[in-house]
Amino acid sequence: MAMSLKTALRMISAAQNKSEEIGVPMCVAVVDGGGNLIAQHCMDGAMLISQTLSLNKAYTSVATTMATGELAKYSQPGQPFYGVHTCNFGRITIFAGGLPVLDKGGIVGGIGVSGGSSEQDLAVADAGRNAFGN
Amino acid sequence: MAMSLKTALRMISAAQNKSEEIGVPMCVAVVDGGGNLIAQHCMDGAMLISQTLSLNKAYTSVATTMATGELAKYSQPGQPFYGVHTCNFGRITIFAGGLPVLDKGGIVGGIGVSGGSSEQDLAVADAGRNAFGN
Amino acid sequence: MAMSLKTALRMISAAQNKSEEIGVPMCVAVVDGGGNLIAQHCMDGAMLISQTLSLNKAYTSVATTMATGELAKYSQPGQPFYGVHTCNFGRITIFAGGLPVLDKGGIVGGIGVSGGSSEQDLAVADAGRNAFGN
Amino acid sequence: MAMSLKTALRMISAAQNKSEEIGVPMCVAVVDGGGNLIAQHCMDGAMLISQTLSLNKAYTSVATTMATGELAKYSQPGQPFYGVHTCNFGRITIFAGGLPVLDKGGIVGGIGVSGGSSEQDLAVADAGRNAFGN
Repeated sequence: MAMSLKTALRMISAAQNKSEEIGVPMCVAVVDGGGNLIAQHCMDGAMLISQTLSLNKAYTSVATTMATGELAKYSQPGQPFYGVHTCNFGRITIFAGGLPVLDKGGIVGGIGVSGGSSEQDLAVADAGRNAFGN
Repeated sequence: MAMSLKTALRMISAAQNKSEEIGVPMCVAVVDGGGNLIAQHCMDGAMLISQTLSLNKAYTSVATTMATGELAKYSQPGQPFYGVHTCNFGRITIFAGGLPVLDKGGIVGGIGVSGGSSEQDLAVADAGRNAFGN
Repeated sequence: MAMSLKTALRMISAAQNKSEEIGVPMCVAVVDGGGNLIAQHCMDGAMLISQTLSLNKAYTSVATTMATGELAKYSQPGQPFYGVHTCNFGRITIFAGGLPVLDKGGIVGGIGVSGGSSEQDLAVADAGRNAFGN
Repeated sequence: MAMSLKTALRMISAAQNKSEEIGVPMCVAVVDGGGNLIAQHCMDGAMLISQTLSLNKAYTSVATTMATGELAKYSQPGQPFYGVHTCNFGRITIFAGGLPVLDKGGIVGGIGVSGGSSEQDLAVADAGRNAFGN
């Protein structure tokens, strides 16, 4: 299943519901399998930087086929991907909250969330990703 | 009235309806009075460049408090704003399809549309802007 | 048919043959439907700038679903896309030599060629694109 | 012996063979002694970020006349090259998988590989470099 606007909005809606449950305003972005933006919503009161971060997390998860929080572990000083956060003209972000979307083994998109703690962003991204196949 | 996500989505929805009426898939972005993104939707089949252009048009209309199609007139060779399209790290776009949103004299946001001809983009942006006060 | 490395190399090979026939060393790049690079070859003696230009032409043709030489016409002073060449962090190029690759109506990639005159670049890109379906 | 397209493609072919033996799709780039791209292939299924990383690794190995994995050791916090990964507008990458190509003491090019683990990328780059003198 390719990523469509309809699917992206369903994912964003599920993410927003989780964000409201947590009580922290967030930005949520969904990109397709080529890393290109499909849709992005910034909830009232979300931090300005969360616009960039949510988009970058979604892009990063597609570009690396990895959860950004996992990538972060490999990107610390002394680790094999140390320095990756400066790649691709600032589009790589190594904070938790970006998740790749896989379908039948292939990568079809990614979701990125920013606004809260690492755990909160990841929980909201996970809620959004779970709505992909609904 | 400040720009909220709810208002931005109402504007985007009205714009998408107009876009579907015209029959050309488009990207639509709404920014607040600080030029920061509130929401952006790219319809299935929209050109990749329309993602950047719609966002830039919305930003540009706020940054200059002017319709981007009007700005274009002042930005031709020999005109006073010639070269403005290279300002702000590539965030300025001088094609029609970006409109500022004014409320009681002040600028509260902007809408940018890309995907069709200048006339089509402007018509869709206008439909979206008209939904601001609904 | 999605763009594969095998297909891209067949296209590049056909383009290089045409380039050798013309007698001008060129760079040839092929990107997929998301604008991401699949393969690029720079022939011995090609201009340095042709590396960037061939990649940007391929990207631009996908991003705009248009031949770059056509886009150029709409991007002159006074035309509706004037200024587009400064978009997307310098990835948009409006010289002839970039062609979109369409398959069953959808865009699946693009080819970009640089090194000679506009006519030569376009002829080489066309030879490469024709090899897509072989 | 200067780096030619023919030589670069022989190196890339050897690298791809090793990559297939390992069973991980990769991107491979070869640059000349001026750090400029000669050829780049991205195998089907390779990560998007590997396009940038393979090119950057090849460039970095020429720019520093050093294996990127070696450079990484000197680029950790507290080390003399700490911060080098932000140099040259994001073209420096300090992960293993980039190797300089030397000929009679002078640097004539570099090869960069990305897609697998540090050890896998290095093994593939080494296989590619070994094909230089064939």
